Amino acid sequence: MPVGTLASVKSLTTEQLKQLGSVIPSSSEGSQDATTSHSEILPLRCAQGQDDGRTGPEIILCNTYHLMLRPGIDLLEQLGGVHRFMGWDRAVLTDSGGFQLFSLASIRKIREEGVEFRSHIDGSPYFLSPERSVEIQSRMGVDVAMAFDECPAYGLSHSEVEKSMELTHRWARRSLAARRESALFGIVQGGVHNDLRKRSAEEIGGMDFDGVAIGGVSVGEPKQEMLEVVNFTAPLLPADKPRYLMGVGTPEDLVEGVAAGIDLFDCVMPTRNARNGTLFTSFGKVSIKNARFAADPRPLDPACSCVGCRTVSRAYLRHLFLNGEIAASVYNTIHNLTHYLDLMRSIRQSIASNSFGSFRDVFLSRISSGDEEAKA
Amino acid sequence: MPVGTLASVKSLTTEQLKQLGSVIPSSSEGSQDATTSHSEILPLRCAQGQDDGRTGPEIILCNTYHLMLRPGIDLLEQLGGVHRFMGWDRAVLTDSGGFQLFSLASIRKIREEGVEFRSHIDGSPYFLSPERSVEIQSRMGVDVAMAFDECPAYGLSHSEVEKSMELTHRWARRSLAARRESALFGIVQGGVHNDLRKRSAEEIGGMDFDGVAIGGVSVGEPKQEMLEVVNFTAPLLPADKPRYLMGVGTPEDLVEGVAAGIDLFDCVMPTRNARNGTLFTSFGKVSIKNARFAADPRPLDPACSCVGCRTVSRAYLRHLFLNGEIAASVYNTIHNLTHYLDLMRSIRQSIASNSFGSFRDVFLSRISSGDEEAKA
Repeated sequence: MPVGTLASVKSLTTEQLKQLGSVIPSSSEGSQDATTSHSEILPLRCAQGQDDGRTGPEIILCNTYHLMLRPGIDLLEQLGGVHRFMGWDRAVLTDSGGFQLFSLASIRKIREEGVEFRSHIDGSPYFLSPERSVEIQSRMGVDVAMAFDECPAYGLSHSEVEKSMELTHRWARRSLAARRESALFGIVQGGVHNDLRKRSAEEIGGMDFDGVAIGGVSVGEPKQEMLEVVNFTAPLLPADKPRYLMGVGTPEDLVEGVAAGIDLFDCVMPTRNARNGTLFTSFGKVSIKNARFAADPRPLDPACSCVGCRTVSRAYLRHLFLNGEIAASVYNTIHNLTHYLDLMRSIRQSIASNSFGSFRDVFLSRISSGDEEAKA
Repeated sequence: MPVGTLASVKSLTTEQLKQLGSVIPSSSEGSQDATTSHSEILPLRCAQGQDDGRTGPEIILCNTYHLMLRPGIDLLEQLGGVHRFMGWDRAVLTDSGGFQLFSLASIRKIREEGVEFRSHIDGSPYFLSPERSVEIQSRMGVDVAMAFDECPAYGLSHSEVEKSMELTHRWARRSLAARRESALFGIVQGGVHNDLRKRSAEEIGGMDFDGVAIGGVSVGEPKQEMLEVVNFTAPLLPADKPRYLMGVGTPEDLVEGVAAGIDLFDCVMPTRNARNGTLFTSFGKVSIKNARFAADPRPLDPACSCVGCRTVSRAYLRHLFLNGEIAASVYNTIHNLTHYLDLMRSIRQSIASNSFGSFRDVFLSRISSGDEEAKA
């Protein structure tokens, strides 16, 4: 899911967003090799439609916290909801506001009832609770709402994380009771503690949610700990509901997440990195401002069919970036999101052809060797 | 001509640029009324192709001064010229560098031979002369190069402007002598002095240029003086060559310029104003940040068929702009350039149907009354 914080996937018009991504030839490397069977990989239930020739993502994420501050929920509802607001006729998932509350809001007071906080923009007071968050998400007309949770910081003690997790569980029940039209996903917490993750997976997995997310990762922990949490937790989630890994990650993280059984991801990485000139390619990550691209007439990634890779050179992309041209953000965002969407499509195709295992091996070896290729 | 200073029309990919503009229904207001004959209006020789259903501008302007500083002419030539660099397969006109030299360069020394100056970016030394400017423009592979001229500031004395104009004339002859593959346009100077404009129009008009431009306007003079210069000078230019009014202007200026006999314009106004949230509509100029648009579900301009006007509301455009979303610049730039391109197409159609006079009357009365409509 590309991230559209304020009902805008940064740098793109909604029409550009719909035109992202490209058809991966059916003879692509991963799907050719069907010798390794990985039937234990769950089908990607949330990823619909992308393989029928339609381009662009089928679902994006928007942020409840940000939208309630700007433009405000009353206005959004009055204007027909977030889909009509941004001219987007596909699915929208919103987070519950929980994560931003704990990372952005300037002053917050957490009680059993909910969270009082002040806007990080102008200090004005707000209140969010499970009921209020679900109500807001439904009033925005989203397809998938997230249960309201507390996202504990990395490094808290076992007992602090446990206490927070138990609050998240009580809030999950209240979120469910407040459910309206939107589908509702629960969120598993528990920090980096396996016993807590197990308890949370059982509790949340046992509730009547439409999908289950792993939250509380990508909050500062080392990458290896994140992967351990995902590998430990994902198999504990219900097999018949979409599994969503929140706030992750790099292309490698997506491949490893799928290997662990994850269906759905969101991350600002492709769009934020694009604006910073860091681009994901089939041969690894590159910084477009690097001097070695100054006179490089080649497309950024010959394996990519995005508009930049089809029409302009590395030298041009570097020129735009170094000179602060807005078009740099546009080209780079289109490229990175195309890379992510194409990756997820390749993964789906390899799963469909029972060759995800070999796809993963080829992908990871290419990434680890590829940066040298870019330097060549 | 949209302005693509650094080989990028700001905020747009080259593909977006090609998709700009829309088909004006043949029953549009101007062409319906063919009672007023304005056969004295010159045909728009430079504006080709736009009426065959192809979208986007047929020609853009890039800046020699900016491109020689970044990415540099050697690199541009090595990469195959400005067309290949930006992935643009239509026409490119470059200015000669003269205007920027006098408005941007930090230190300059003007001699008969040419101008020594220092980059406004890093202070590094450069030299431009008629021969060097024409050489640089040709090495960039542009379709139309401009002769190297001196652009005197507004408010100089008659004798100062005269001296500068005479230098421009000598430089024009040297530019012509240095002509290579690119077409070459001469530039008429003479400030706000009719006798000088007449002399310059005769001198430059008598030389073997492929087109003639009116330079030295839009340099700080009152609008009325600009229009007087254009109305006085345009009819003095050769009737069989394109007439180009440099650095102008508002939609009204374009209509008045065409009425005076101008064929070709360039201005940063549509793109720069877009980034500042000032949008041109069929009912006048509006500032999208205005609070009256906060909950306005209507398209910005119902008469416009740009992607923003077709898919999102005024409220959404205001939301994007107020929150500093890059997509605000993208939507706004697409809109303003579409407005300008559609205006020029309507003008061409009204000329073709001998109804430009009534088109102009309707257009100007709509603009003067229209801002009230936007406020309604």
